[in-house]
Amino acid sequence: MEKAIQDYYPEALSYCYGCGRLNEQGLQIKSYWEGEEMVCVFQPRPYHIAIPGYVYGGLLASLVDCHGTGTAAAFAYRAEGRSPDSDPPLRFVTASLQVDYLKPTPLGPPLRLSGRAVEIKGRKVVVEIALSVEGEVTVRGKVVAVQVPQTMLDELAQPKP
Amino acid sequence: MEKAIQDYYPEALSYCYGCGRLNEQGLQIKSYWEGEEMVCVFQPRPYHIAIPGYVYGGLLASLVDCHGTGTAAAFAYRAEGRSPDSDPPLRFVTASLQVDYLKPTPLGPPLRLSGRAVEIKGRKVVVEIALSVEGEVTVRGKVVAVQVPQTMLDELAQPKP
Repeated sequence: MEKAIQDYYPEALSYCYGCGRLNEQGLQIKSYWEGEEMVCVFQPRPYHIAIPGYVYGGLLASLVDCHGTGTAAAFAYRAEGRSPDSDPPLRFVTASLQVDYLKPTPLGPPLRLSGRAVEIKGRKVVVEIALSVEGEVTVRGKVVAVQVPQTMLDELAQPKP
Repeated sequence: MEKAIQDYYPEALSYCYGCGRLNEQGLQIKSYWEGEEMVCVFQPRPYHIAIPGYVYGGLLASLVDCHGTGTAAAFAYRAEGRSPDSDPPLRFVTASLQVDYLKPTPLGPPLRLSGRAVEIKGRKVVVEIALSVEGEVTVRGKVVAVQVPQTMLDELAQPKP
């Protein structure tokens, strides 16, 4: 079975509340290639409420954020023509996040996010995301993602004193 | 003791994961007047991790979102020259959210958000927010908040069949 991009993140960078496979309290989102896009399907919990019946906007922003950095990583590997299990690892953080709530997002069905990189330049990747429920786009997002410096990766990989 | 703006929200609109006093799993943020600004202090949980040692960006976006709609409500009441316990209630939702992560936000100390309305026009309020840790601003946010229509408030207040 195909692995999600998040399953390739180095261990020290896998504690993110949104997308870290090692954060037990977190959302643990997973993003996969689907044609030319990265796709994440997420089932909101019953308590992820905004107004009753609708999904909390902060959760939607969180999904856009983490699917955005995952999409950035996937496109960056592809641009370098190598697999996400090759070295050095590419891991991105968010420099800025724009979320437009086009209409209320109904709470109940799974949410589908599709993302693609619209710009890759040096250490920066700009990602655009559409979030839909049962085929209807309710949210559009834009993430400016920046690659985590190798020095920080090295530092995090050190055992703590 | 002064009540937070969220404590004035109508019951049907108090289940928001970010700011609803009736959402037991939620963040239950509280926003108060402090001079000419609305201020919210929030203690992140140990699992609100981005990269280890730093606060999850999705949580920061959620705080900006909910403190943004709370700030919008507080400024809207003030613009109408009336108290938040007068009728009709003013409750806002987010139309768009912009979050700029200026630098990583250290995980540990409480976070302080200060917000002010920079535009009030009809049912729309634009709020700018600065988030700081120990006096240093790490995140800036902008929320375009829109008033929930009275018809929707009435509908939500109806008992469910």
